[in-house]
Amino acid sequence: MEHTFKAVDEQLQGLFRDVGVMGDLAVAQLRGAVTAFVANDTASAAAIAAGDARLDEMDADIERRAVRFIALHQPMADDLRAPITAMKTAMNLERCGDLAKNLAKRTAQQKGPPSQAQAKGLTDLGMLVADRLAEVMIAYRNADAGKAKVVWERDTDIDELHEKVFRHILTDMSGDPKSIEASTDLLFITKNLERVGDHATNIAELIYYQATGEELSDRPKAG
Amino acid sequence: MEHTFKAVDEQLQGLFRDVGVMGDLAVAQLRGAVTAFVANDTASAAAIAAGDARLDEMDADIERRAVRFIALHQPMADDLRAPITAMKTAMNLERCGDLAKNLAKRTAQQKGPPSQAQAKGLTDLGMLVADRLAEVMIAYRNADAGKAKVVWERDTDIDELHEKVFRHILTDMSGDPKSIEASTDLLFITKNLERVGDHATNIAELIYYQATGEELSDRPKAG
Repeated sequence: MEHTFKAVDEQLQGLFRDVGVMGDLAVAQLRGAVTAFVANDTASAAAIAAGDARLDEMDADIERRAVRFIALHQPMADDLRAPITAMKTAMNLERCGDLAKNLAKRTAQQKGPPSQAQAKGLTDLGMLVADRLAEVMIAYRNADAGKAKVVWERDTDIDELHEKVFRHILTDMSGDPKSIEASTDLLFITKNLERVGDHATNIAELIYYQATGEELSDRPKAG
Repeated sequence: MEHTFKAVDEQLQGLFRDVGVMGDLAVAQLRGAVTAFVANDTASAAAIAAGDARLDEMDADIERRAVRFIALHQPMADDLRAPITAMKTAMNLERCGDLAKNLAKRTAQQKGPPSQAQAKGLTDLGMLVADRLAEVMIAYRNADAGKAKVVWERDTDIDELHEKVFRHILTDMSGDPKSIEASTDLLFITKNLERVGDHATNIAELIYYQATGEELSDRPKAG
């Protein structure tokens, strides 16, 4: 019986560890994509876009293992939380990867370089969002509900900065109608960075629920 | 033993049926949201936004039941597909619901009514996407891999219409810088409708995999 418990524990630890690896990768992809886009560095951007496949594979693998774990070990109620949290966290990270890839792919299609102010706005927002994702993954590794809640509450900062950067780009568009197409891309990038922040918030909710059995509700941001 | 098989079958049928109900609801929410937005009908839009909670609840319930099913019945490989497909289809429908809710909520915030051409573009795109979602759910109800593949291949139509509507709004913006803010909302709505199309494509892939054990690859659309 001890053997069985040990195997169960090793399988869960393996899942847990690999979700952590996905988190590091997703943060690296995101920071890399923001930097490459702002510098119009198409070579780095292409490497980042290609690197997303690894996150897709890891997500599919984690899902398979989590489902197999549930099927084999028949965990009840509370013990279902760990594999489900691993699977859903992986899914959120995979989507962060898709958003980083989307940003990387936009680098080669840039209609013009962003202005200095736009570059600063995108970098500030991108790095803030990457910081939050990195922080929530630290909470994940430590199963730290308190830290997860702090990340979750701070999502309002991301919303505020997103709103500011978004408004700024809109103002630029009004002042220079020729820039409309390039600026529209920047608006979508800004929105996608905010969506990465939403995934960090989702992960915070998953961690909190796994650790406490209770749901974080009254999410601070508007749907 | 016969009793057990019967119970298993009833649980799976129940999941399957409820995912179908979610599909009908998601299609109704989407069509309703498009119609309300274009007509600037804030009362209908508010009812639609409130109605999204039902899709959220059904998704959470289907997930719980699918996971419990897997934990209790320990299905192996092939037999895992049905509950996993149900769970993931529900998740995609829940996100379609979120996008419909987002559109509904934009109705009350409209900065100005869309032009006749814009209203036509959004309606055409919204109804096309809703048709595809309805079709893919017919394929789901019939576990029809062939029909799922047809929906999947046709996603290029959605991409083309999306591109056309998007370009049209951009042109309007260039011609009338005062409309930039209102038009930006329309750009995001257009993009969100395309994302509903992506969810329909995801569902087609799930159905195909469940029925054949093979993956639909070389997805026709760009990532």
